[in-house]
Amino acid sequence: MATFVMQSLGCEVAALNTVQFSNHLGYGQAKGTRATAQEITDLYQGLKDSYLDDFQMMLSGYLPGAASVEAVGTIGRDLKYKATMKPGSFFWVLDPVMGDNGKLYVAEDVVPAYKGLVKDADLILPNQFEAETLSGVKIVDMDSLKEAITTLHGKYRIPHILITSIAFPTHGATPSLSVVGSTFTTGAKPRIFGIKIPAIDCFFSGTGDMFAALMLVRFREAVTNVPGLMATAAWVSGDEVEATELPLAKATEKVLASMHEVLTKTKESRDAELERYSKQVGGRDAMSDEKKLRLVKSKAAEVRLVRNLKALKDPDVKFRAETV
Amino acid sequence: MATFVMQSLGCEVAALNTVQFSNHLGYGQAKGTRATAQEITDLYQGLKDSYLDDFQMMLSGYLPGAASVEAVGTIGRDLKYKATMKPGSFFWVLDPVMGDNGKLYVAEDVVPAYKGLVKDADLILPNQFEAETLSGVKIVDMDSLKEAITTLHGKYRIPHILITSIAFPTHGATPSLSVVGSTFTTGAKPRIFGIKIPAIDCFFSGTGDMFAALMLVRFREAVTNVPGLMATAAWVSGDEVEATELPLAKATEKVLASMHEVLTKTKESRDAELERYSKQVGGRDAMSDEKKLRLVKSKAAEVRLVRNLKALKDPDVKFRAETV
Repeated sequence: MATFVMQSLGCEVAALNTVQFSNHLGYGQAKGTRATAQEITDLYQGLKDSYLDDFQMMLSGYLPGAASVEAVGTIGRDLKYKATMKPGSFFWVLDPVMGDNGKLYVAEDVVPAYKGLVKDADLILPNQFEAETLSGVKIVDMDSLKEAITTLHGKYRIPHILITSIAFPTHGATPSLSVVGSTFTTGAKPRIFGIKIPAIDCFFSGTGDMFAALMLVRFREAVTNVPGLMATAAWVSGDEVEATELPLAKATEKVLASMHEVLTKTKESRDAELERYSKQVGGRDAMSDEKKLRLVKSKAAEVRLVRNLKALKDPDVKFRAETV
Repeated sequence: MATFVMQSLGCEVAALNTVQFSNHLGYGQAKGTRATAQEITDLYQGLKDSYLDDFQMMLSGYLPGAASVEAVGTIGRDLKYKATMKPGSFFWVLDPVMGDNGKLYVAEDVVPAYKGLVKDADLILPNQFEAETLSGVKIVDMDSLKEAITTLHGKYRIPHILITSIAFPTHGATPSLSVVGSTFTTGAKPRIFGIKIPAIDCFFSGTGDMFAALMLVRFREAVTNVPGLMATAAWVSGDEVEATELPLAKATEKVLASMHEVLTKTKESRDAELERYSKQVGGRDAMSDEKKLRLVKSKAAEVRLVRNLKALKDPDVKFRAETV
């Protein structure tokens, strides 16, 4: 997912597959293998051996254990160190994949491993649960959200934060989904913006990777649009820039527009496919085969990417960043 | 290479990586791992377990040993068997990667393993050396070329053959490069066409995979343009269709147009990059570091794909199929 998104937007990608599975885990079952930390380290060494390590950006996603988190951290730090004399020439996007909806889905030792990485990354993309885990602040309302972001900026000196899904407990009202981001000021103070998006009533897999890949491309693009910013350490905008005018905010608007278009089309195709399936099996036993139905539903909800390149490349921006 | 080409032309791809290397072998060195035959078999089983094996086409490329060739053969046969009652609903493109320029670069037991597969595939894409190895006919002129193709159609009952690079020994004249193909008739007689292309004076890696992926997409497209053909076993055109009017010929024209555009642009970028490198290192020792220069040259010649999507999607067809 991430590789194709970046490639289709014009990036040359060196993809290091941390797993090779038959399918994503939304199916509830899969076969395949995980790369060991040693394999990850070896592949990077292979790139270095042939002068193929001149990366401008790095994105990491799901990693199968603490050792591989450490291995990726070593790569990120090595690339960052090489870029010391050229501020802004390397940018590290870290998606600290640990869990969701109040639950860890990685081993417990992955948490401290990620905590060790966040202070060296440039942009992190935690979901609400991961932001809580990293900051130690339970997010229940606007105030605790601000506290979590302030803590992350302060504790880890992480310049850019984007919390990819915030859903506050609501009383009666329709639940709304928000993406909330911040780029710190020179005093490590947050500049917080938020974008509200209509929720699509369907579970999709891989959208985190799609979001991360789009962010990498669009953030770089937004930074390029500001003269001189790309040659600044970690691409941090001057203190005079308002939250909603941050390149991070502009990038997020574009990313969410692409996501919304692709997922709306996916939902339509999924509904049509399930309708066809239902007609085809009719009242026969296949419909009462719960396991098969679950698998068919997972497949029907696979994100429709390759035929929706226009939505990736040239989305119609509808949701705007607002000051929080 | 193959995955991105197919995806960017609108195909949903389930990619099974048979190796994960830091770089292609044109660099003369690489780190990484090979998938075992068991891993290949397991991944396919994982797809089946979740009803994800409804493929219309299969393309196989480099395989790291006889056991993995067998494993991929088992997958191809299983998919073919499932499609028995629906002629044309599954199509198998086999690139029998064994060697080039008179030399094997796989273990010797890979040769009989591929020979066992060819009789079940629908289209094979050997280079001249691989066509010689499979047919047992040394290709030195038009007559022996025809004999090799006739032998392949007859011996393996393979419906479609495309020999991806033919260079006859020439006496004095500029060497010309040709692609020669054939779709057999009901009597297993060849219908041979050829397309001459100007050679680009540079060694590129991955072009075989690029060619194969483009062929898969363009052949399917050309078959779709002929009413009823897609519901015919192995998409074999009626005997009345001339060689140059075959969907295989039409597809090859389009594929070669894309290849030529992308590689011409790659050559330009490569020359500019080497020029920059030469100026940068000047007379300094780096230029006399032969190993580094070789690696830099390999990198400079990497095929420029992601920024040349127009050449893939909408190429300008210049080279036409001719009767041989």
